[in-house]
Amino acid sequence: MKTKKLINDGAAAVDEMLAGVLAAHPRHLRAVEGSPRSIVANEGPRPGKVGLVIGGGSGHEPTFLGYVGKGLADAAAIGNVFASPPPDPIIECTKAVNGGAGVLFMYGNYAGDVMNFDMAAEMLAMDDIEVRTVLTTDDVASAPVDQKERRRGVAGNVFIFKAAGAACDLMYGFDDVERIARFANERTYTMGVALAPCSLPQTRKPNFEIGPDEMEIGMGIHGEPGVARGPMRSADEVTSELVGKILDEMKPARGDRVAVLVNSLGSTPLMELYIMMRKLKAMLDDAGLVIHLSLVGNYCTSLEMAGASITLMHLDDELQRLIDHPCDCAMFRSGEALQ
Amino acid sequence: MKTKKLINDGAAAVDEMLAGVLAAHPRHLRAVEGSPRSIVANEGPRPGKVGLVIGGGSGHEPTFLGYVGKGLADAAAIGNVFASPPPDPIIECTKAVNGGAGVLFMYGNYAGDVMNFDMAAEMLAMDDIEVRTVLTTDDVASAPVDQKERRRGVAGNVFIFKAAGAACDLMYGFDDVERIARFANERTYTMGVALAPCSLPQTRKPNFEIGPDEMEIGMGIHGEPGVARGPMRSADEVTSELVGKILDEMKPARGDRVAVLVNSLGSTPLMELYIMMRKLKAMLDDAGLVIHLSLVGNYCTSLEMAGASITLMHLDDELQRLIDHPCDCAMFRSGEALQ
Repeated sequence: MKTKKLINDGAAAVDEMLAGVLAAHPRHLRAVEGSPRSIVANEGPRPGKVGLVIGGGSGHEPTFLGYVGKGLADAAAIGNVFASPPPDPIIECTKAVNGGAGVLFMYGNYAGDVMNFDMAAEMLAMDDIEVRTVLTTDDVASAPVDQKERRRGVAGNVFIFKAAGAACDLMYGFDDVERIARFANERTYTMGVALAPCSLPQTRKPNFEIGPDEMEIGMGIHGEPGVARGPMRSADEVTSELVGKILDEMKPARGDRVAVLVNSLGSTPLMELYIMMRKLKAMLDDAGLVIHLSLVGNYCTSLEMAGASITLMHLDDELQRLIDHPCDCAMFRSGEALQ
Repeated sequence: MKTKKLINDGAAAVDEMLAGVLAAHPRHLRAVEGSPRSIVANEGPRPGKVGLVIGGGSGHEPTFLGYVGKGLADAAAIGNVFASPPPDPIIECTKAVNGGAGVLFMYGNYAGDVMNFDMAAEMLAMDDIEVRTVLTTDDVASAPVDQKERRRGVAGNVFIFKAAGAACDLMYGFDDVERIARFANERTYTMGVALAPCSLPQTRKPNFEIGPDEMEIGMGIHGEPGVARGPMRSADEVTSELVGKILDEMKPARGDRVAVLVNSLGSTPLMELYIMMRKLKAMLDDAGLVIHLSLVGNYCTSLEMAGASITLMHLDDELQRLIDHPCDCAMFRSGEALQ
């Protein structure tokens, strides 16, 4: 059975979405002229500031384009659904936000993205634009701890990009922005659970099979295999497993502060996310941890996939300051006055 | 087949959700002591200010509790899933936010809510708290234009509550707040389409039946029958029908300004909402209308129902000023600096 979708032509879905994004948010966003897949912040890029370019496949909205704006990313290069952008829109994003102080590429660690962003970086080197890359690898379930460099980037992107974008906005030098970006990634841990698949606009067929009473712990945001498939369990049991795994690896001390994100993969409603949040809070209380900031909602989705992920960022004073730094994006606004 | 949900006990879902909401947003929200279904803003209520109490059934998150905060509602009384709160939490909300200048009740026009809020108002009259009520009736599909008082309140609540809450925050007198609330409701039009049902936590069974290639125009947010069921159509055709009906009734002049909301009923992803936004923008351009503000996302949901609604608020100078007035809620932040 094909999923019903409010689309026109499946092949045009991404471009029509982008047209709608620009129609809704003209004060925040524009496309580079002649490069409609290069979405740039109207405010943010400026001379002497390190530029931050993010990007990846569509279908994860508000990731990536929702995080383009003052205080966060300067531009996002947009691929087809669940597919990397080619080098061209990445290059156009980079040229549009280059303030002469270097441009940082940040994106999830997926082979297609690495290939295309690396190609773009090579071509930009010929234009004397210095580009560096920090991959996000926050998905704890995607590889063992001794192979962290193989891990994928998922919802923790929100915090990692946020910290790096704040450092750029505060006019940190290129070395310091890169240091912060790597440190933010090291300190960010995500683990998710999938209950039901999504379907791509062009096929409208499920992107994976799962039984009517099954769930899969650790499944990736494109349906990549997780670590354990089994019968449905309660919200408390699932939260306990996800957070337990994260804390085992994070090894926080009592009194440490964390930023938390309880994220819907798409169709899982706020009611369920907040039920998970309740258990998460109880576990963090038990561990003596302080929640500095909580985000609960649709932050990194897989179209209408059912399921959720939990992210913890292990804060220190610097990360906390950067996470608190105000940002103003079309789909995300935050700052110390607000949370 | 039962829907998979990340819950514990279905009967405890609402209370566990509220515990999670308070855990996530302690700086914004608190519950009245001894009345866990009465959610009050930490900032907002103050002496001499008209109080604004909203409320209704759970399952529509971020409606209602997400709109409690400075510049918007002072409190929300929370019912079971898709069921009105009883008088008690409404009374406790009212007492908690009463600043001596009167308290306005605003909620969607549903029989159960009217009965319970009216009972609360009667009991509060004995405590010398002056209460008035403005029902929201923005759902164009729910009754003919000559029976507007029978219409239901749906996603347009966001704009209507926002205008009234801003008037309260600006210390308007009770008469003016009531006038604004009624005017905001008159000027707000919503129409939706449903593609697939949701299920309640206690049953996990679909709340309505619909064929695999069918959609229903005008269905309510609890699955109330709509105006036309038929085969799935394209996003542009659906948008055209919804917006055409709204504009027929609104009768704007060229050059008029509108606030727009493209809202997901739950599982319909941002990609589809923005594809609808693209067509909406084209239609408003054709009609010579100016989009002053756009919201696109999950603002008034029905758990994981699939579908979307479009709301237009027909602005004048006063409504525009009130819609632009800053608000700071746990799940909604806006203000002229932001949009």
